[in-house]
Amino acid sequence: MALSEFALIERYFRRCGAQRADVRLGVGDDATLLAVPGDAELVAAIDTLVAGVHFPHGSPPASIGHRALAVNLSDLAAMGARPAWALLALTLPEAEENWLEEFTTGFADLARAHNVALVGGDTTRGPLCISVQLLGHVAAGTALTRGGGNAGDVLFVSGTCGDAAAGLAIEQGQLAADRDARAWLRERFLWPTPRVALGERLRGFASACIDVSDGLLADAGRLAQASHAGAELAWAELPLSQPLLEVLGEVRARELAFSGGDDYELCFAVPPQNVARLTAQLPPQEWRYARIGVLRAEPGTVVMRDGSVMEFSHSGYEHFR
Amino acid sequence: MALSEFALIERYFRRCGAQRADVRLGVGDDATLLAVPGDAELVAAIDTLVAGVHFPHGSPPASIGHRALAVNLSDLAAMGARPAWALLALTLPEAEENWLEEFTTGFADLARAHNVALVGGDTTRGPLCISVQLLGHVAAGTALTRGGGNAGDVLFVSGTCGDAAAGLAIEQGQLAADRDARAWLRERFLWPTPRVALGERLRGFASACIDVSDGLLADAGRLAQASHAGAELAWAELPLSQPLLEVLGEVRARELAFSGGDDYELCFAVPPQNVARLTAQLPPQEWRYARIGVLRAEPGTVVMRDGSVMEFSHSGYEHFR
Repeated sequence: MALSEFALIERYFRRCGAQRADVRLGVGDDATLLAVPGDAELVAAIDTLVAGVHFPHGSPPASIGHRALAVNLSDLAAMGARPAWALLALTLPEAEENWLEEFTTGFADLARAHNVALVGGDTTRGPLCISVQLLGHVAAGTALTRGGGNAGDVLFVSGTCGDAAAGLAIEQGQLAADRDARAWLRERFLWPTPRVALGERLRGFASACIDVSDGLLADAGRLAQASHAGAELAWAELPLSQPLLEVLGEVRARELAFSGGDDYELCFAVPPQNVARLTAQLPPQEWRYARIGVLRAEPGTVVMRDGSVMEFSHSGYEHFR
Repeated sequence: MALSEFALIERYFRRCGAQRADVRLGVGDDATLLAVPGDAELVAAIDTLVAGVHFPHGSPPASIGHRALAVNLSDLAAMGARPAWALLALTLPEAEENWLEEFTTGFADLARAHNVALVGGDTTRGPLCISVQLLGHVAAGTALTRGGGNAGDVLFVSGTCGDAAAGLAIEQGQLAADRDARAWLRERFLWPTPRVALGERLRGFASACIDVSDGLLADAGRLAQASHAGAELAWAELPLSQPLLEVLGEVRARELAFSGGDDYELCFAVPPQNVARLTAQLPPQEWRYARIGVLRAEPGTVVMRDGSVMEFSHSGYEHFR
């Protein structure tokens, strides 16, 4: 090991991810210089993954690199923004070359898939911790926010929730599953798919959007609260993956889908008059989203089952637990 | 304690630092929305401070907040850029309210002094580690870089180097000093002053600039290398603070000024034809900078003393030590 910071940068971080013409000065100076389109607003997010908190110690390094970027891509997707540039602050106990090679491969593959260039960063020694700052842009005034919804808007969620929480439980030895379900659910935790294309397309239809990172119930509640509304979710309508159903059975699977974390799906509100146009132009089977409830005037978030309000033991996940 | 992430954001991070009209959407959504001036390039830097690596465990929390922002302000200063917006990724073992109150006060005071708004962030639990992402802008095509220098350019440095390294040694009990020198040198480590106004003003004069964070010898060498040149520094010309001279004596003080770290001063190259204009418009006594050498055609960095090249035991500090 004993790779210097400069050797690290040269070997692993220069020319990592996409190459973009709007990067006027990339990795290697005191700061990076970027050209933002004149008619756009800059969109910026930062998210940190800490070993032992956000992923188990010993996770595959490529999946850590993938997830560190994916959780930020998911934030930009929730704004309907187009990601462009990333900065990476990497704190690690030692510069182990195989680890770095795999980590940067996982990061770079996802970056290239979304045309994101790595433009800067900082490498320090310490407990394993990765902060990614992601920058992108969106046509001025068109970004999706959490607070644009209104009572009566229809709530949707992309993909299936709960899979990642089950995958993490499997990874931690707290949940058993047969080989195929195990592989699929672990993958849903280790290699989340941020819904960037969906987020960008939703700008013409949705009134509000949030990414589901702390559990659907908690995050739908945040969207509702920011929109000065409440949320009514339908127990029976929440889509579930077949592997989750197999491993947990329907009731536990639905509970986990409402309360688990790390889904990185999008939950969004659509005014009733936009729903037909949305489902015609973005067919739900193709774009993988489903109707799960409505925003209502009364504050608070409830899940309705057979006409009654359900009780949940906890309403989601907070990072500061 | 047991403050939720949301309580933390509301209490400490919302409305932290300056309030700016170009923040279209600040803390509290999935990402922030910012208006970048149309004729400007975006400038972005990220720097991480890890407890026990970049500052001693138990450092005053306000100084940690100050330094976490200052080291990034220094990066933008080296580009000649104007800072505008910060994102803060804070990983800490527990949400201790006094600590957070002091930390955010140190951060916010410096942010307001530079008209920087805190626009986003992430709070996670783990070993104490702070990443600040700083965004700013600079008129397109006018940024200072490390690589713009040429042989013959005159090298300058702002302030006095070595003080912060001595302050850290005092803080760690490795160096003794009388009360006044001790207080002054500790302050130089704990509360560095980023040279933002100087950096912005240098755009009309300097050909290249770098911030001195890893030791003057190492950083001047990086500027020279990026400029495809070498650097010749004058042992006798490097300005020293009176407290450093008192504590170490002249020879050890000069050695530390060349090789210490954490100065956050600016080292910059000025073409000979610009020097008279520079010193007339930015008087060195007022702006606190001094001539320390020249860029030369031969690669490498040397320190000249009484007409001979000096040897140094080590050429600076790398974070990955």
